Amino acid sequence: MSERCAPASDAKTIKRGTSSSNAYAASIEAQKRNPYAPRASDFLSDISNFNIIESTLCEGEQFANAFFDTKTKIAIAKALDAFGVEYIELTSPATSEQSHVDCEAICKLGLKAKILTHIRCHMDDARIAVETGIDGVDVVIGTSSYLQEFSHGKDMEYITKTAIEVIEFVKSKGVELKRLESIGWANPRQVYELVRTLRGVVTCDIEIHLHNDTGMAIANAYTTLEAGATHINTSVLGIGKCVGITSLGGLVSCLYAANPEYVKSKYNLGMLQEVENLVAEAVEINVPFNNPITGYCAFMHKAGIHTKANLNNPTFSPPFPTIDTILRHRLTGWNAIKLCVEQLGLKLMDDEIKDATAKIKELADVHTQSMDDVDSLLQVYHLGIQYGKLAVGQKEALDRLLKQHREAKESNEA
Amino acid sequence: MSERCAPASDAKTIKRGTSSSNAYAASIEAQKRNPYAPRASDFLSDISNFNIIESTLCEGEQFANAFFDTKTKIAIAKALDAFGVEYIELTSPATSEQSHVDCEAICKLGLKAKILTHIRCHMDDARIAVETGIDGVDVVIGTSSYLQEFSHGKDMEYITKTAIEVIEFVKSKGVELKRLESIGWANPRQVYELVRTLRGVVTCDIEIHLHNDTGMAIANAYTTLEAGATHINTSVLGIGKCVGITSLGGLVSCLYAANPEYVKSKYNLGMLQEVENLVAEAVEINVPFNNPITGYCAFMHKAGIHTKANLNNPTFSPPFPTIDTILRHRLTGWNAIKLCVEQLGLKLMDDEIKDATAKIKELADVHTQSMDDVDSLLQVYHLGIQYGKLAVGQKEALDRLLKQHREAKESNEA
Repeated sequence: MSERCAPASDAKTIKRGTSSSNAYAASIEAQKRNPYAPRASDFLSDISNFNIIESTLCEGEQFANAFFDTKTKIAIAKALDAFGVEYIELTSPATSEQSHVDCEAICKLGLKAKILTHIRCHMDDARIAVETGIDGVDVVIGTSSYLQEFSHGKDMEYITKTAIEVIEFVKSKGVELKRLESIGWANPRQVYELVRTLRGVVTCDIEIHLHNDTGMAIANAYTTLEAGATHINTSVLGIGKCVGITSLGGLVSCLYAANPEYVKSKYNLGMLQEVENLVAEAVEINVPFNNPITGYCAFMHKAGIHTKANLNNPTFSPPFPTIDTILRHRLTGWNAIKLCVEQLGLKLMDDEIKDATAKIKELADVHTQSMDDVDSLLQVYHLGIQYGKLAVGQKEALDRLLKQHREAKESNEA
Repeated sequence: MSERCAPASDAKTIKRGTSSSNAYAASIEAQKRNPYAPRASDFLSDISNFNIIESTLCEGEQFANAFFDTKTKIAIAKALDAFGVEYIELTSPATSEQSHVDCEAICKLGLKAKILTHIRCHMDDARIAVETGIDGVDVVIGTSSYLQEFSHGKDMEYITKTAIEVIEFVKSKGVELKRLESIGWANPRQVYELVRTLRGVVTCDIEIHLHNDTGMAIANAYTTLEAGATHINTSVLGIGKCVGITSLGGLVSCLYAANPEYVKSKYNLGMLQEVENLVAEAVEINVPFNNPITGYCAFMHKAGIHTKANLNNPTFSPPFPTIDTILRHRLTGWNAIKLCVEQLGLKLMDDEIKDATAKIKELADVHTQSMDDVDSLLQVYHLGIQYGKLAVGQKEALDRLLKQHREAKESNEA
């Protein structure tokens, strides 16, 4: 069980049960335009009405490599604020003297984002937190039978009594947010039904914090929003204890797919890479090769069929519209090579481009071709055609021209 | 649309509609023991009855860095076979001469896993594939309106005619597997309902291939199995075009959470890390820090509450039962430090351990403490207690002892 309190005056009033037939019709229209739009039949969905509680400076501090000094914490808080997250969650000021000092420093920055801190369900922790100037607190106590038995050893009666005492103390500060904490094994339909059930019995905000043990934290966050959760905990690159939690970039990417206009209106998406690089550097990790949106191969297509569709309609594949790399590989198609020809300003007929592509595939069987390799080959091919030394299908002539080019290049370099 | 054909004699017969009340009761019992067990109410679920079609040597070849020579392909195929995947999918032998040679070489290895290849819906490709000795083919042609309009430019009439021609040709080879290909934006409940609908109208196997553009490929695979999909495409570390597809390790980890005994009976889980390292090395990437199961921080807990539960009941958190690292950090709890004390063979009372923990947290506020730092502190603390130079709460005495130890160490090193 967990309760979060923030000043009532800051509370975002979310009206429930106000779906009109107009809203339903608008949802149907949105789905026609975008198959990933929130479904009209998800009446409680908050896919287009959510807040991010960014926990890099709380959950993220539990990451194996994390050691944030005050300067780094302030830099991360400012970057997250500039990105546009609604809340920034900090490690409890009761944890250590430095945590206390840092919490006060961040509260004084005057950020647009609200500052929360995550405390144990102890009166001492609550008093310390309230004095730092934070906008809200998140009070946590484990209620699972495992934690009751193997960790704090308290029963539900004690837990309830203590929670009420702490909540009463901070209640004058405002509204409550309930929070669920998965240990990371739960699956999407399971958390969907859990939250939909909770949504049916409470009217308060519902905050969700999901671990990523089995790689499903992004998807679990998405389905809980479909079920009516209002606030999602994230961390940059998903850093946290063990394999971490829902990542900020991952959550933004799947919500962008559902409602790009809403996501663009809330967040400064162009800053995502900067925020991720800042945190990756601070905790000395590489951004994973397959990180949604910003991973270095996020928009690379090798196979011809998809390359052609992307070239002809740049909105086809990636959620953030750009195709910045066409690869030179044995799986490449002639459409990708045609784009290279155009970029180089060369004039070749389609059958000539197909002929050159066949040669590139042959060479790529021996080793991946670099950008330079392919550009050189296309220039040699083009010159060959231009000076009548080459025609489609003349493999030996092409090999000879390539050999001459290679030798000339080597003698220049020698 | 896509059809996969494999020899009929090899076909796994899956009986549908045979759920008895006994099976239902067994599911209910399983859920009592494990909250992540397949749900009894998912009558069509294949969470405990699925096959992996491993596509590192097909989809994975489209990964930005992938260039597999014959030797590497054979090493990967053998490792996947030893891990226990049911099918290995190869790049079409029609793609290039080397792909053809490699396909034949892998077919001749005599692996336990069946060998499939992924071909375009062309009669030429089908003939070439069938001649290599593969166990099955996967025939693919895009049917989306985007691909119809922007890629191959063929209408549904042409697609259907060509598909029937190719399928008739290979049909004598056996059963068909239908395949869905998501472009990676779909969400878990969406793919669940798509597959459950398909499951209601076809009796054949259903193979699913899911891209990871928005970080949901593992979860999407999981929900399609709940809906009755029978075969999931994976690649090692999820490598593939753009950010890749469902990762082998990720899929195994979420299915292990649901039914550990079944997953252990099918796969040699101890080999996962070896397979991942082999592929990571071949494509020159780092295993992401947060990779399920094998990522280097997969089992690290800093916060005291979870550490204590894990120490008292090692099955609490990670799907693969081990806790091999207790971190020394300002977020650490005294239970973690108590374990260190025991590992070092020191004798300290609980209040002494709590006192030492307070000092470790104080030092960790300045910089993360290494294993050696904490071990040294505990040994100094223990010696202080033993020789009567220290008692609980004597901060200055402890600082003095630590200073002496540091100076002695420095003079030894000098």
